[in-house]
Amino acid sequence: MTAQQQLIFQDSSVLQDFMLSALLDDSPLTPTADFAAWFASRADAHPFQVSRVPFAELTGWRFDPTTGNLGHESGRFFTIGGLDVRTDRTWISHWRQPIIVQPEIGVLGILAKKFDGILHFLMQAKMEPGNVNTVQLSPTVQATRSNYMGVHKGAEIRYLEHFAPGRHSRVLVDALQSEQGAWFLHKRNRNMVVETDEDVMVEKDFCWLTLGQIRGLLRIEHLVNMDARTVLSCIPVAVSAGSHSAQGKSAASGEFPLSVLRSAQGEGGARHSISEVLSWLTELRARRELIAERIPLTEVRHGGWQRSATAISHESGRYFEVVAVDVQAGSREIASWRQPLVAPRETGLLALIARTVDGTLHILVQARADAGSLNGAEIAPTVHCQPANYRDVPPEHRPHFLDYVEEAEPHTIRYDVMQSEEGGRFLHAVNRYLVIEAGEDFPLDVPEEYCWVTVYQLTSLLAHSNYLNVELRSLLACTQSIW
Amino acid sequence: MTAQQQLIFQDSSVLQDFMLSALLDDSPLTPTADFAAWFASRADAHPFQVSRVPFAELTGWRFDPTTGNLGHESGRFFTIGGLDVRTDRTWISHWRQPIIVQPEIGVLGILAKKFDGILHFLMQAKMEPGNVNTVQLSPTVQATRSNYMGVHKGAEIRYLEHFAPGRHSRVLVDALQSEQGAWFLHKRNRNMVVETDEDVMVEKDFCWLTLGQIRGLLRIEHLVNMDARTVLSCIPVAVSAGSHSAQGKSAASGEFPLSVLRSAQGEGGARHSISEVLSWLTELRARRELIAERIPLTEVRHGGWQRSATAISHESGRYFEVVAVDVQAGSREIASWRQPLVAPRETGLLALIARTVDGTLHILVQARADAGSLNGAEIAPTVHCQPANYRDVPPEHRPHFLDYVEEAEPHTIRYDVMQSEEGGRFLHAVNRYLVIEAGEDFPLDVPEEYCWVTVYQLTSLLAHSNYLNVELRSLLACTQSIW
Repeated sequence: MTAQQQLIFQDSSVLQDFMLSALLDDSPLTPTADFAAWFASRADAHPFQVSRVPFAELTGWRFDPTTGNLGHESGRFFTIGGLDVRTDRTWISHWRQPIIVQPEIGVLGILAKKFDGILHFLMQAKMEPGNVNTVQLSPTVQATRSNYMGVHKGAEIRYLEHFAPGRHSRVLVDALQSEQGAWFLHKRNRNMVVETDEDVMVEKDFCWLTLGQIRGLLRIEHLVNMDARTVLSCIPVAVSAGSHSAQGKSAASGEFPLSVLRSAQGEGGARHSISEVLSWLTELRARRELIAERIPLTEVRHGGWQRSATAISHESGRYFEVVAVDVQAGSREIASWRQPLVAPRETGLLALIARTVDGTLHILVQARADAGSLNGAEIAPTVHCQPANYRDVPPEHRPHFLDYVEEAEPHTIRYDVMQSEEGGRFLHAVNRYLVIEAGEDFPLDVPEEYCWVTVYQLTSLLAHSNYLNVELRSLLACTQSIW
Repeated sequence: MTAQQQLIFQDSSVLQDFMLSALLDDSPLTPTADFAAWFASRADAHPFQVSRVPFAELTGWRFDPTTGNLGHESGRFFTIGGLDVRTDRTWISHWRQPIIVQPEIGVLGILAKKFDGILHFLMQAKMEPGNVNTVQLSPTVQATRSNYMGVHKGAEIRYLEHFAPGRHSRVLVDALQSEQGAWFLHKRNRNMVVETDEDVMVEKDFCWLTLGQIRGLLRIEHLVNMDARTVLSCIPVAVSAGSHSAQGKSAASGEFPLSVLRSAQGEGGARHSISEVLSWLTELRARRELIAERIPLTEVRHGGWQRSATAISHESGRYFEVVAVDVQAGSREIASWRQPLVAPRETGLLALIARTVDGTLHILVQARADAGSLNGAEIAPTVHCQPANYRDVPPEHRPHFLDYVEEAEPHTIRYDVMQSEEGGRFLHAVNRYLVIEAGEDFPLDVPEEYCWVTVYQLTSLLAHSNYLNVELRSLLACTQSIW
């Protein structure tokens, strides 16, 4: 254990356990060769149908007669309200929008257990109504507070007891992390990995996978869902020469370029110290103005939003719509239901630019505050936008590095996969995840809201809440499949 | 530098600089013997008068005709709005209250500079209208965003340039920290200590003090203001045997009981690892419900609040009042003004219980969410309340450890001083600050919302936002004067 690794975990054995599991891309419990067939069988086992319905047929939900807010009759789950946002930006500094309000903290939990000394993670084939492809690979537990307090009145959540107080498990990861600030107001979920040594009955929709297997699956589009990706991102990359030799797996060190090893190992080669990175973020959180105030949903009409029988949408045809769906399904806590979903109008782009600086790989990140951000700016990918929204925007107001990323030369592209955002709240929300390794001719001088950081620095911040936004966490999880 | 110290700062020289300054309780720049006379002269130089006025005479401010919110005509500074709060507590689970809304981040900054190798801190004798005793010792800079963006239209803020982007200074401390969650909605300020090596012109109301001198002044009631205390709390205690010998000041190690040294030095003797402490806090943030929604100020009347010509107050005579004052002063950015203030009805009690566990001093803290907390529960003192509010409350709903603390035996009391909260927003807000060192017969088993932590663990969390509430930070600064 180096001093730097202790920043993340006191217990060196946790890091070693993660690393050993990451080195193995196959397992006798769920052989990699059998995974695709197993996963297809689970999808086939759950026939279901999602169809748009008019708001008038959204059973159980209603528009509040005074505010126009769309909520559930029980007062639980979530509400679609309105938000008025004022910023000090030069381009669109004041706007109104619908926003998902869900002032409670859910649990995204992955259960881990050692088999023959190797940590395995219990993953779930789970259907969500907004998924483009029916079933995706999900955490062991994905529970809203309403879920675990029993508001659903459906079946109880499997394996939830391992994440509850009084559990007999070792907590490996535990932090509140934010979700999509453009669509959610102040939403956070608790990201957990807990290890049990009890016997675990494996239900039909679940399977044990090593970290190496899961990281392999991250190369496949729309397979590992967003909830799984955010939890996985909190697991340190855990690449360390010393640990390799300790495990007798020195072959692995040959797989990683030295600059990546250096980036993941500690503070040594970082362009800025972690104190400087935090001070950069604090500066932008303090100086940049973002004043978001709840307003009744009826009031978003003054911001160009219109409500029809089937959607709340913006007159420009941009951003997103609020719609209603009917779900007939077999693998959820209850068999069928209706709910609103937020449907983005266009595919998004989440891109990281990386380059080696003085022998250490660095990642270019930005400090970005979305309308629903709880703490002001969070650390976000180099490019984070829906490019279609900027088609006819003057060049000086287009996001930095968007053109560079869209025109990247093929040989610099390390990762280019379409992934889905959370299918429980978003309908067909798809982002292109892109990682580009620029050459050393890429300029190191960047605008003040951007900063070069190492993989290690980002990972160390994930022990705390609200530093990395969900899009960056999700993208970081994907980079674990390549580096 | 041990591995643990690197948790706080990469740069070991920063810790050594703080420690050396803390060891010196006198300085040729401002001799300790001369301080009281200098301070009295500054108070005398600033004749001022604060008097209550009716709301009708609150020039520049008005109650909004629709919402009843009390705000400034410019739309800047702060607003008094309403808040509706629902919790899962068993005692008073739903209430309404007025709340100060100020959605901007100010700067609380202390400028530091080395003289003959010793760090000195530029402190200010500053008047605030709500202070019980006119002038208190304040940070170099205490600026709201309105201040530094020039809304005051008054004199510019002295020394602010050292805390602005492009400064040529070394940032020693820089973190956003919360303020009183019972009275402020989501308020945070940026706590900074920056070191300059430029020449600094010392204005009349300012003086250079060592950390040792300032810590000595923390034993005097109502002298070091809250804004100074919160910034000071972010400076590590920096007690380390190794560093003592490095400085040739080994005598100092004799001043500290071994258990305190151990508590301040690192993770070694801690009852819970820092991961466990964070997981404990995360658990309580996730499980406990606190749903606070902005409402118009007029709507707090349904919660028992009444507005008279001179005050908004609760029918029970408890909690606080919103009042208006006229200020005639000479040492502020502008010479006279009127403003609302929040005036607590009773003196508060902020108490820490400490005890030695296995040779290491531990502090008992609680996870506590106030109405205006941004992130849910923060870590708070063992006891944090206005005792008068609980006079006729059934024993099972009285705060834990309140009776123990109020009946503490004199020989266990290590610190017992009255201190003021922020005089710019609060009128005569006074708390009794109490530190009790309990014997080893004090029970280690505590209710689930309490946890035993070391001084080191608390200090290491101060590099991040929103872990320690302002009352605990303020109390921690005071403990630096005794340990």
